Amino acid sequence: MEEKNTIEDKSVIVIGTGAVATNFIKHFLSIGITVIQQYGRTIPLEITIPFISDINNINTDADLYIIAVSDDAIAEVVEQLPSLNGLVVHTAGSVSLDIFASKFSKFGVFYPVQSFSNNRNIDLQLVPFIIEGNSMESVAILKALAVKISNNYFVFTYEKRLQLHLAAVFASNFSNHMNSIAQELLLNENIDFTILRPLLQETFNKILTINPLDAQTGPAKRNDINVLEKHSEILTNNPIFQEIYTLISKSISTFNKK
Amino acid sequence: MEEKNTIEDKSVIVIGTGAVATNFIKHFLSIGITVIQQYGRTIPLEITIPFISDINNINTDADLYIIAVSDDAIAEVVEQLPSLNGLVVHTAGSVSLDIFASKFSKFGVFYPVQSFSNNRNIDLQLVPFIIEGNSMESVAILKALAVKISNNYFVFTYEKRLQLHLAAVFASNFSNHMNSIAQELLLNENIDFTILRPLLQETFNKILTINPLDAQTGPAKRNDINVLEKHSEILTNNPIFQEIYTLISKSISTFNKK
Repeated sequence: MEEKNTIEDKSVIVIGTGAVATNFIKHFLSIGITVIQQYGRTIPLEITIPFISDINNINTDADLYIIAVSDDAIAEVVEQLPSLNGLVVHTAGSVSLDIFASKFSKFGVFYPVQSFSNNRNIDLQLVPFIIEGNSMESVAILKALAVKISNNYFVFTYEKRLQLHLAAVFASNFSNHMNSIAQELLLNENIDFTILRPLLQETFNKILTINPLDAQTGPAKRNDINVLEKHSEILTNNPIFQEIYTLISKSISTFNKK
Repeated sequence: MEEKNTIEDKSVIVIGTGAVATNFIKHFLSIGITVIQQYGRTIPLEITIPFISDINNINTDADLYIIAVSDDAIAEVVEQLPSLNGLVVHTAGSVSLDIFASKFSKFGVFYPVQSFSNNRNIDLQLVPFIIEGNSMESVAILKALAVKISNNYFVFTYEKRLQLHLAAVFASNFSNHMNSIAQELLLNENIDFTILRPLLQETFNKILTINPLDAQTGPAKRNDINVLEKHSEILTNNPIFQEIYTLISKSISTFNKK
């Protein structure tokens, strides 16, 4: 059998029906990557390629299987999958390659450093991909895929990927939560969240153009005890927000003294 | 004496040499507001109008005095100022109007909901201004000023302004700190912070287009115990980051269940 040398010659199966799976399939089709099947336990919102909901019907001759399910569902998918000769990868930031070791011979990780949500199109061309593979061959296939998608990839160890994922949680999930708290505080006073829009824009611009450490401002940075106490007092009725306020203020004050 | 009816007819003195004072003066001059003096203890980087460093030389005939110094320095400035007939205002989010009550007869607050930094031009036309005044007349002057600058103003009580300022601290200072921690974590593994740029852009877009509460994603939202434990373990050597990780994850998990 002739070796398939380019990523366009390879057949791909996507496992999952969530936002990552949906974005991958759409983008793959648009750039000429052959997706032959999608598997999921729930019917996807949009079916663009042959869909199966029974894992026993999975095509075992594909070259690449991309498991795009939530981190805590990967182990179960691996258990249910039949023996496969193709390369099997997951897309998770915090799951080790070892999860595949006892079952498959070719396996890897293809982690997009992005937050995917239903009904939001992500331009994959801008997404950095973190690659890991069990062999040079596995890594080479994933590099070829990454080059085709975004030309923005890094081959990282598990430890490095995990650290990056943790950083992404702080930068994205946690900063979003800071905004959720802000929204909740404004709601209490019937103030529309959009009042913060110019401030958020400037905060974001500074994070990208200056670095966040140098961009830090605010009462905690200035160690303005009066303001810190007034703010804390407002939060008396919300102990967890108050605790967050005190802890982050302390962290800013410590961190920015270094 | 003829009454001065429009804001262009009024003479303004700016007290302070920091980022707020600098931005105000530049913008005021560009839109035809007459700034007759700037006072500060340190010489400003750029002198565009008559500057005094001795408060005794302050012109006592101005119509409007804008105290644009850090929150914890306002009281001292008030103490040092001579008796004034003009309207005296500060620009702070968390300082009560009462700070002026025993000294002046016309006073107010003119708080810009924005974070100002040296060497960054803020387009004041996009900034919402929060107004408070000791009288209808004081409020009217500040409204006229706000209309001239940005046409985006709100007359709020002290309690409402304080709550807004607290929300701004969460949305801006605290989400910046989340990014500082991310940057620090990446530095430990020699990963460039720019790897997070597309993720930050998407996070920011979601905060503005969806609301932050609905935009929340991540292991804490999914209550993915495995990932939460792995992340926490990485932070063992940094107790304050670990404490922040645990507390915010708990808050996300609680808050998003409501």
